[in-house]
Amino acid sequence: MSNKFVLINEKIIPATEASVYINDLSIQRGYGIFDFFKLVDGRPIFLDDHLARFYNSAAQMRLPINHSPEELKELLFSLIAKNELPDSGVRMTLTGGYSADGFSIAEPNLIITQQKLTINKVAPLNGTRLVTYSHQRQFPEVKTIDYLMAIWLRNYIVENHADDVLYQHEGNIRECPRANVFIFTHENKLLTPAKNILKGIIRKQVLKLAKASFTVEETNITLEDLYNAKEVFITSSTKNILPVTHVDGRVVADGKPGENTRVLQEKLNQAIYQLCV
Amino acid sequence: MSNKFVLINEKIIPATEASVYINDLSIQRGYGIFDFFKLVDGRPIFLDDHLARFYNSAAQMRLPINHSPEELKELLFSLIAKNELPDSGVRMTLTGGYSADGFSIAEPNLIITQQKLTINKVAPLNGTRLVTYSHQRQFPEVKTIDYLMAIWLRNYIVENHADDVLYQHEGNIRECPRANVFIFTHENKLLTPAKNILKGIIRKQVLKLAKASFTVEETNITLEDLYNAKEVFITSSTKNILPVTHVDGRVVADGKPGENTRVLQEKLNQAIYQLCV
Repeated sequence: MSNKFVLINEKIIPATEASVYINDLSIQRGYGIFDFFKLVDGRPIFLDDHLARFYNSAAQMRLPINHSPEELKELLFSLIAKNELPDSGVRMTLTGGYSADGFSIAEPNLIITQQKLTINKVAPLNGTRLVTYSHQRQFPEVKTIDYLMAIWLRNYIVENHADDVLYQHEGNIRECPRANVFIFTHENKLLTPAKNILKGIIRKQVLKLAKASFTVEETNITLEDLYNAKEVFITSSTKNILPVTHVDGRVVADGKPGENTRVLQEKLNQAIYQLCV
Repeated sequence: MSNKFVLINEKIIPATEASVYINDLSIQRGYGIFDFFKLVDGRPIFLDDHLARFYNSAAQMRLPINHSPEELKELLFSLIAKNELPDSGVRMTLTGGYSADGFSIAEPNLIITQQKLTINKVAPLNGTRLVTYSHQRQFPEVKTIDYLMAIWLRNYIVENHADDVLYQHEGNIRECPRANVFIFTHENKLLTPAKNILKGIIRKQVLKLAKASFTVEETNITLEDLYNAKEVFITSSTKNILPVTHVDGRVVADGKPGENTRVLQEKLNQAIYQLCV
């Protein structure tokens, strides 16, 4: 890990020494939640949204957080000050804790890590390729640590000459493992799946920013809708907006990032830039 | 944990010092598999079956094991000799390893723990109560560490005055989080779900032992079949055979453990006893 220090349960320690005991419920039973936000020029991007989602994920999975959002912010900033990584990602993980019987939730462990982010400058311009796969995440609206399927699908992605996978369930599209998906119809209507997904923070921003220029709808989107879209893009905190040029080996429109997507990329970049000045 | 020593990657260390670094893929992404077998009077029960399943789970999830089954047995026995816990459970966990990018599978960490088992002597006689819940495990035939749903459902079980939960999917029963389910029809036919489940080692034994006395079938079982069953029981390595007296608040037959179930309990106890003399 590129981070120098990490924070575990209020203590800042060198990353090389950061460990948890093996009876933690994350190791025993894959039980935990997390959130992740970006620092740009040392400024946290949409931090309050990420904190709100973190607290919601914890509550949904019945993991108590012994800190108010203000206290948690203080912990975050103390680590950020120590690490001196102005362009980085910060991850807050909350595990099921040291469970005596290996099954019951205990006092959660709070782990905060920070890693340098290398921005991919090519993908936002050239676009990315998706392949779909039938899967519905359990606890879709909670940011759990469950990425079993996502990691297992790495081979499937490569075999299908794609860069990322898009889950679909019974012919309705859902989300990528770490990104939300949007389509523009040929009527320049912006659509994104309404439910059974993790609602991304950049997704929320895009919905807000797009409303000034486009008709926007959170709704059910079929594979057919996706294949026939005028433009497709995905959003995430690390990726911002990535145009999608190929889905399941088919070319989206003319295979180039679309004009509407460009407009939204520009709007989002400005919104993020506003947070950093 | 009641175990004194644990084994991590070939090294036996005191349990109180047993930890893994926080970049392990189990903590980061819930990625790992495991298996669990019982020691009775110091003898491992159906160890070869558990090892075969452990290797299969690892292969399915693309986690390499750097030991032959014989080498792994040696490691297991060295820990067992050290811990001196003749009646206990031994768990072998294989995690996704220390991932540089927090997403890609690395060199897996092998963690072996051993814990004293207190045998519940009442439940096999008095029976247990189930409540059903709609859920299909991802990677059903693999013993992954994913117990998010199982742990989350603890409240649901209590609220429904049950002892355990039975997953059903679209009206077809599957399994409990840590046990397989069987029913006897009123024609004394023994049925158990055929697929989309983890195939338990005790399940395999029961299928084998039952064939001498009953017609046995691995097949689809509906909730209706379950509610109308003459007898219901669940099986697991810790529980052996547990009669089920209540399902979704309904009484199974007369609410007492059934005769056929008793016959199978006796046969299984004998088979396990044979392994210990």
